[in-house]
Order: sequence, then structure tokens, then C-alpha cells
Amino acid sequence: MMGEGPQPRAVGPRVAAIVPAAGRGERLGGGTPKALRALGGRPMLVRSVEALRRSESVTQIVVAAPPTLVEVVAQLLGPDVRVIAGGAERVDSVRRALGAVDDDVSVVLVHDAARPLIPPALVDAVAAAVIAGHPAVIPVLGLGDTVKEVGPDGRVIRTPPRDGLRAVQTPQGFRRDVLAAAYALQDVPVTDDAGLVEALGVPVTTVPGAQEAFKVTRPLDLVLAEALLVRPSASDARAGADACGSNAGMDARRSG
Amino acid sequence: MMGEGPQPRAVGPRVAAIVPAAGRGERLGGGTPKALRALGGRPMLVRSVEALRRSESVTQIVVAAPPTLVEVVAQLLGPDVRVIAGGAERVDSVRRALGAVDDDVSVVLVHDAARPLIPPALVDAVAAAVIAGHPAVIPVLGLGDTVKEVGPDGRVIRTPPRDGLRAVQTPQGFRRDVLAAAYALQDVPVTDDAGLVEALGVPVTTVPGAQEAFKVTRPLDLVLAEALLVRPSASDARAGADACGSNAGMDARRSG
Repeated sequence: MMGEGPQPRAVGPRVAAIVPAAGRGERLGGGTPKALRALGGRPMLVRSVEALRRSESVTQIVVAAPPTLVEVVAQLLGPDVRVIAGGAERVDSVRRALGAVDDDVSVVLVHDAARPLIPPALVDAVAAAVIAGHPAVIPVLGLGDTVKEVGPDGRVIRTPPRDGLRAVQTPQGFRRDVLAAAYALQDVPVTDDAGLVEALGVPVTTVPGAQEAFKVTRPLDLVLAEALLVRPSASDARAGADACGSNAGMDARRSG
Repeated sequence: MMGEGPQPRAVGPRVAAIVPAAGRGERLGGGTPKALRALGGRPMLVRSVEALRRSESVTQIVVAAPPTLVEVVAQLLGPDVRVIAGGAERVDSVRRALGAVDDDVSVVLVHDAARPLIPPALVDAVAAAVIAGHPAVIPVLGLGDTVKEVGPDGRVIRTPPRDGLRAVQTPQGFRRDVLAAAYALQDVPVTDDAGLVEALGVPVTTVPGAQEAFKVTRPLDLVLAEALLVRPSASDARAGADACGSNAGMDARRSG
């Protein structure tokens, strides 16, 4: 049912991908809702949804849009994507989207709209790990910078050992019943979906992430995303972007 | 004494900048020592040293080069930079460079060669904070991704609260006697110079970092650096790079 024309699907559990895209994303500036910010001529959300569509495992996509923009977003994404009104906070949007997932779905992925260059293979890797029996799976990368814990006064408290730290990306994948139970919790302050699942005491497993799955949050992230979109290797993502040879030919490989 | 022609210097303590540049940087690939990897046609190390030169506070620059490349690096950087043979590990290089700092220097900055786009104003902000009385100063940014502590088995152990975490950049600035005392310690496993100072029990203060001060570690970092170098606003860093309009005009501002 996804994309243009028939696509082969592996026989297996049905996998829904939820994209909370109702946030304002003020750090990027520009006044546009963050998910609709253009990247190489197309909204980030459209690129994120396309990556999910191109994965081999995702069978349903549910997007939580800003309430005033549900119709616009639905038109933008096409009839194979279910678009619902998101909530004031990200958790509200995910909770509502979870309610719009088809009954026969047993695996749910939650993906940030602001990670538009996610390789479809990473989507499949997360889904596969859940299908293989892990109740919660997150893609992670090592950290380039040393990280410090800093107090409210700006003084360093301690340096946690970097070897044990990982930066978390999306999509995060869950057994549907586990994610539903996590979202039934109230007032757990977390910054990602896996954090809710951890609060339940459910083990969370990691898989290798991908550099391309970086989150577009700050202005330099947009510069990187645009640069990647004009590279020859990003041939499927060039619409609206001029080709420019000067950044081409870098020794860039997927890390995950 | 730095750069071409006379430059006004504020009257005040003498400030040395140390650049450990003897590492191999295997994550970038390509076989070249990491610091000599070209960026927009010029080695990263040359760009890093130029940023230090353009700062208003730095009065001496000491570079620790790969032992076999001391002469080459000295020629590349010019007569106003002291180039010494680095050691096998980063700590060895910094320790040796510290020994080559002029006697009248009272403030020492340590800067990664792999942060070539560091704004000179950030160099000055770090130096100024040390001169103002802080024994140890590091530039930091908030984290875009959630960070998790992960065990050797790939399972998540916990999610440290993101509000208190900061990514650490360079230059890190120190009172000279404090850094010398830190480097007199043996076998303290740390990933940054401030970590050594923390082990002494000396308070470490933070100042706002800058997105442009990111570390060029992985292939996508090179893509971002190249993209920034071809933007019109990077007019002082265009030598060897073709201008390319397609990435220009982004809403990119310094965050620090």
C-alpha cells in the first residue's frame, strides 16, 4: 500500500512508523514549523516520510501534524500516510498517533521528522531487532566530544566516562504493547521514547546508528543536510537542489 | 610577533596556545595524518593555527607535530609558530609542548588541530575568562541528541538528565601553573585536558561554545566543514575552495 506501485514486503509482523511533527523547532528560526522547513527544496517531513516509505519493513505511516496544518500536511504526504492532529508536547503527539495505528500492527517505530536523511536500511535494522525479540531498540553512535555534567552555576561537576556514553538517534523501535504501556505512564520527564520504556523496567537494546541520521536542530545542521543533498551519491534526494561539484568526492561512508 | 605585519595586542598576561597535532586520526581515513588533511585546499592544522593567530589574546603558538614531519609542518606554518616533535599519545604531545612555552607566559590554551573553524572570538573569550581569575575554562554546547549510558553488552544502563550535560570543545584555557600540575599527574585516564585539572580538584568553569568549533572527526564532519568554507560569509577562508552558491544564504548564526 505504500509508495508508487507494488513493493515487495517480507512476510512478517506489521510495522507502523509514527512521526511526531507538530513541534515549532524554534532553535532553527525562520517561523516555519520545523518539520515543514525546506531542505534542498522539499520539507524535512516529506524527506523523513520518504525514507520510511523506502524501508522494506514499514507497512503503515502515521504523522502527527500541527493541528492547523493537518489538511496541508496530508496533501503534501499523499493518501498512503495517515495524518492526525498532534498535541502541545511531543509525548501528546506520539500518544495520539499510537491511537491511530492499525489494530494488526505489532511493532511501532517512532521517528523524528527532523532526521530527514535517515538511511532506509537503518529503519529496517531497528524493525528487524524488535521482530527478533527485543522489546525496545534504539540506534546509537559514539560521541565525538567529551561530555561533562555541569551544575546550574556553570561549573563542571564530573566527566562521565565517554566509553560508556552513546548519542541516541531514531527511529526507536518497540513492541507495540510495550510502547503503549510506556505511554500510559504519566509525568515521567524524559527526552526520548526509550526513556519512558526504561522507566517501565523494560530492557532497551542498541543497534549501530548512522551519521546520516543526524537531527537537524541548529543552523549548521541545515548546512550539512543541504551539502549532503547536493552530493552525487544522494541521487535520490536531489529534487530542487542544484548540483555543485565542489563538495563532491568526499570519503563519506555510512557508519551504521 | 604573530602573523603578517604589526597587530595590536591588549596589554596583559602573555597567552600561549598549544596545538597537539601528532595524531593519526584513523576515523577519517585517507592515510594522511589527521591534522594535515586538506579542507578547502588547506590543511586543517593551518586553518586552526590561523584562527589562533587572528585572536587578540594569543601571543605564542606551539604545535606538536608527528616526529617525522616537524620540518614540513614548521615550513607550512611559518616562522612565528614553534613546532616540536609530539609524542605517541595526545597527553605526551601536550606535555612536550608545555615544556616549549616561553617563560613569561601565564595562561595556556590547548586547542584541537581538528577544530579548524573555531571563531577567533571564542579563543579570546576562553583566554579572557582565565585572565579574569578562573583557573580552568572550557567552551561547551548543549547536546542535540539524548545521551545514554550503555553497558558492554549494548544494553542501556541509564539516561543521564540531558539538562545537565554539555559537549566540550576547545580551546580549553588554564592558568599555566594549574595545567603544569595537572600534566605532572600520571596515568589518569581522561579524554580532555580539563579532566586532568578536575582530577586535581581545581574548579573548571564553562563559557558558551560555538557551533563552528565542531571537531572534524568523521566523514560527515568534513562535508560540513567544506560546505561552510564555500559560503560567502566565510570570506577569509576561501583560498583553494570553489565558490558555490547552492549552499549559501542559510540562516546560520553563531551560537556562542
